[in-house]
Amino acid sequence: MTRVAAVIMAGGRGERFWPASTSSRPKQFIDLTGDGTLIQQTVARISRIVPLRQIYVITGAQYLDMARAQLPRIPTQNFLVEPVGRDTAPCMGLAALFLERLDPDTVMVALPADHHIADEDRFCDLILQATEAAAELDHVITFGILPERPETGYGYIEMGDVTQRTTGGTIYHVRRFVEKPDRETAAAYAASGRFWWNSGIFVTQAATLRREIAQHLPELHAGLEQINAAGNRAEFDALVALTFPSLPKISIDYGVMERAERVLMIPGDFGWDDLGTWTAIARLRSGDDNGNCLSGNALVEDCEGVLVEAHGERIIAALGLRDVVIVDTDEALLVCTKEQAQHVRRLVERARTAAALLTPAQP
Amino acid sequence: MTRVAAVIMAGGRGERFWPASTSSRPKQFIDLTGDGTLIQQTVARISRIVPLRQIYVITGAQYLDMARAQLPRIPTQNFLVEPVGRDTAPCMGLAALFLERLDPDTVMVALPADHHIADEDRFCDLILQATEAAAELDHVITFGILPERPETGYGYIEMGDVTQRTTGGTIYHVRRFVEKPDRETAAAYAASGRFWWNSGIFVTQAATLRREIAQHLPELHAGLEQINAAGNRAEFDALVALTFPSLPKISIDYGVMERAERVLMIPGDFGWDDLGTWTAIARLRSGDDNGNCLSGNALVEDCEGVLVEAHGERIIAALGLRDVVIVDTDEALLVCTKEQAQHVRRLVERARTAAALLTPAQP
Repeated sequence: MTRVAAVIMAGGRGERFWPASTSSRPKQFIDLTGDGTLIQQTVARISRIVPLRQIYVITGAQYLDMARAQLPRIPTQNFLVEPVGRDTAPCMGLAALFLERLDPDTVMVALPADHHIADEDRFCDLILQATEAAAELDHVITFGILPERPETGYGYIEMGDVTQRTTGGTIYHVRRFVEKPDRETAAAYAASGRFWWNSGIFVTQAATLRREIAQHLPELHAGLEQINAAGNRAEFDALVALTFPSLPKISIDYGVMERAERVLMIPGDFGWDDLGTWTAIARLRSGDDNGNCLSGNALVEDCEGVLVEAHGERIIAALGLRDVVIVDTDEALLVCTKEQAQHVRRLVERARTAAALLTPAQP
Repeated sequence: MTRVAAVIMAGGRGERFWPASTSSRPKQFIDLTGDGTLIQQTVARISRIVPLRQIYVITGAQYLDMARAQLPRIPTQNFLVEPVGRDTAPCMGLAALFLERLDPDTVMVALPADHHIADEDRFCDLILQATEAAAELDHVITFGILPERPETGYGYIEMGDVTQRTTGGTIYHVRRFVEKPDRETAAAYAASGRFWWNSGIFVTQAATLRREIAQHLPELHAGLEQINAAGNRAEFDALVALTFPSLPKISIDYGVMERAERVLMIPGDFGWDDLGTWTAIARLRSGDDNGNCLSGNALVEDCEGVLVEAHGERIIAALGLRDVVIVDTDEALLVCTKEQAQHVRRLVERARTAAALLTPAQP
């Protein structure tokens, strides 16, 4: 029986959800949908097929207490700490090393902590299919999402031939991973039927990923081998703290997937949304007759497509607005057009500089 | 030597400046321009030509403490109280009665507390001219403002023939007062050269106004005569409290000016603005290169014509907006288009119903 472990990757800063998210409380730790925080939802979803004691969380040192508090049913020793953010390749490499030391054949399901999945049944079915394929095939299994729009904010996967048809679905070879395209290329990709959004969800044997890293990111591999010298968990954690900051900062897509040959793709038709911007939140919520999605003590008059994200008794009044997002927190207020919501990060940079009130950025 | 007294009318609720103004702190008591509250500016302006002990303030009972606190140099006995708001005819009638009892020949300068005057020198010159004319001519002197736009929110004055030319300026007969016109009529008025905005500033002998009220508003006159039976100030105040609530609620324009014959007009070319809406505030302030007028801890990115009215350290961030007003107070947030700013009152009504946080409306 294959041992399956889920790794929830929760180190992101989620700046596009500022000011609801801040560097001291990133997106994955806030409740954007009214159904618990995103990391709580991610754990609840995967716990339907992976027992809690096999669910691991990897996050930044400054988020550890918050993660543990939000996930009290995950065993304490299942939290791994990234002393500094080094993007997804070191993160997944560290998780793979940790799991490999427990059992080299462990199949690891690597899940971003901050995504939304509409169809959880389908999600669980396909994850199970992927774990079986990963156990059997010694490939990294990815999930591709059929593009709904010519999105320039995602990487894409070009699909190859069918490798396996099962009752659950079809597994494809991957021809190549491509980075975020320009608008024209994105439109061509979306129309092609061959290009899929890269969901950032990966299923792989720990040993498979470790081997791919050794082949394509030798510097990261060497760092992980230093950590692997640890004799026990305390030594492991100490070596992570020592070694991690010097690891290369690189994404798993760019560092491994774009170069690896043994990668397969499953079409992830489970209603995936990475909740990239406030506009995504408005898409998820059911608005009133005028497409306004209101929360808190909101009053709107002559408005269409307005999203109000607020809590508490303070009145949030909007008049005459079209497709505007209003986010009101104790620390800050954001008013932006939906069209510009993807650029909130620009404001965060400026706010960080300008404001003493914002917690300093992750070191 | 004519005795001149200024009467600052400060009973308005200024709801179009919600949430900066509320029914517990109306527009005249807030600092909208950065130069003190509007009533403080109004007093400072008129005190250049009227001594402080001759400046009177008439306001609602609930605003008396605030008015006194903001105007510590005005003698305590110069504050008159309207127990309830009854619009401008009873307000000015009460002030005229009060002044008449001191000296029937007193020339009263009645000034709304919440207007902006760009050219104070010119304002003072013309007010002096008006007081001289009022002392001499036994007419009510009004100020007309040359229309800058086809405004539908103001009453208009149709000018008649010249009655007097002085070195200071020209005084005209008034053909008629007209109420707020529709858009088409307003455009015709603005283009005519004969119609002027009614500034709401009046200069008159106390006895002249009392006589006009007796002629055109006998019910109000009778009420004022009941108050006039008072033997001293304490009795006066007690009779006001008793009588005022039963006085007719009517404006001086509708109740007296539209019917009176002895009315003159001086062109008030002193940069008058009644600060009717947030858009007026944006007009007054000098914005940045993109026409953004910012206050508080505001950050804007890709914005044009945005007015941010805020105080304190909280960050107000705006992204991608055009011609939008953002007003942030402890009690409420308003986000509205400049185009719709005149309809803020609609929201105030709804907010008053919805929110326990707002102070109840004036009884």
